[in-house]
Amino acid sequence: MLTFVGLGLYNTEDLTIRGKREIEEADIVFGEFYTSRLIGVNPEDLGEALGREIKILSREEVENGKLILKEAKSKNVVLIVAGDPMIATTHVALRVMAEERGIKTKIVHNSSIVTAAPGMLGLQQYKFGRTVSLPFPQENYFPTSAYDFIKINQNLGLHTLILLDINPRPMTANEAMKILLEMEEKKREKIFSKNTLIAVVARAGAPNSLARAGYLGDMINGDFGSPLHTLVLPGKLHFAEAEALVKLAGAPEEILDK
Amino acid sequence: MLTFVGLGLYNTEDLTIRGKREIEEADIVFGEFYTSRLIGVNPEDLGEALGREIKILSREEVENGKLILKEAKSKNVVLIVAGDPMIATTHVALRVMAEERGIKTKIVHNSSIVTAAPGMLGLQQYKFGRTVSLPFPQENYFPTSAYDFIKINQNLGLHTLILLDINPRPMTANEAMKILLEMEEKKREKIFSKNTLIAVVARAGAPNSLARAGYLGDMINGDFGSPLHTLVLPGKLHFAEAEALVKLAGAPEEILDK
Repeated sequence: MLTFVGLGLYNTEDLTIRGKREIEEADIVFGEFYTSRLIGVNPEDLGEALGREIKILSREEVENGKLILKEAKSKNVVLIVAGDPMIATTHVALRVMAEERGIKTKIVHNSSIVTAAPGMLGLQQYKFGRTVSLPFPQENYFPTSAYDFIKINQNLGLHTLILLDINPRPMTANEAMKILLEMEEKKREKIFSKNTLIAVVARAGAPNSLARAGYLGDMINGDFGSPLHTLVLPGKLHFAEAEALVKLAGAPEEILDK
Repeated sequence: MLTFVGLGLYNTEDLTIRGKREIEEADIVFGEFYTSRLIGVNPEDLGEALGREIKILSREEVENGKLILKEAKSKNVVLIVAGDPMIATTHVALRVMAEERGIKTKIVHNSSIVTAAPGMLGLQQYKFGRTVSLPFPQENYFPTSAYDFIKINQNLGLHTLILLDINPRPMTANEAMKILLEMEEKKREKIFSKNTLIAVVARAGAPNSLARAGYLGDMINGDFGSPLHTLVLPGKLHFAEAEALVKLAGAPEEILDK
């Protein structure tokens, strides 16, 4: 048996009662923290917080699955991951590999930035288009597919959740906004300017979480505190959404008149 | 203080440790179950399961907010809701009303069908377009906006999460598929036919949850067990997604060749 247990967003208090029980009952607990991570507790300290030994796996060990599948063949194995467990492709692939080998699998769902960020800002989840990820630009490689997807959402009036790279370190909202403006310079399709309304969600799920909305030119130098950061580009706002952005995220009141 | 505590998907085991603590520490616990509900426990039995008296509110009491806000002015009030708390517009409106009155608010996030359903099917969440809701048709009123939104997602190659009405009772996947075919008859834009690949998620988060994919003509008479049901219309499938649908949801193997 292989059980994927989501840890949610912040620390071990975000674990569900079901997830806690699965961890307690497991023969072996593995942990994976390169696709996503908790902000309130270091992977190395998780074992103590959960009262269980946790074997933290390398990226390769999760991707090839050998060790996990070998153990899950005869033992009750739990793999703990931040957020909701099946958001990462790697975990789906691992689950398919397990089922192919006759190993039963289970999922213990948990909260995800995909619904937490819209909720914190008061934007309606069903008005979001496709989620995009913003990678760190590499030397000689500046991918702009995120820009293209954002443009499609904007043309449809939909909001966009923009997830920021966490490798080799978490990207800040400030860095992300700079990258978006650089994309604009390359593509020039008028998605981003200093007057674009944009929102930052920082440390979703944490007691010191933050939701702030404003014009990109003002936000780009804002101090949002420590990571993880997420951006949301609002599309066409319903009046109730504009009001929520003003009241809950400090957006300029003039957006109510638009 | 007004704290919105998400209960997750199935029963009280899906509550997070943080959520449980907030309920224990609250002066008053209100519950709201018309926007969404748990499938593993009746609202009336929740109080016993949680060891707290829970005052279940009517739709009107949540929407006008009077009682909740009056109590939250001086007391530590928790409002428990199924899923992730801010998915419903009503809760965002209530939160805005509270903040306007100087009442601090907090959100305890939890799992949502929005990420659970893609995960159960092995479909990538970032390849979903806008989520749509399918209401029960009323006499003389057969809204087809869901069809239009689905068409946009299909044209973009994106998957669509189709949430089914829960009022006055939970719509079954079978009923939903019939409604989609009726929409097709009205609109005739070639989204749905008996050969359309479609997926059903039933009882997400429950021990007896089910994920099944197949052709609409076969699925429409399928037995998916008791509600809640959710539909997913897959868009363009990555090979790994097609493989997941076959291995995890019993889709016909021929979809691997497409």
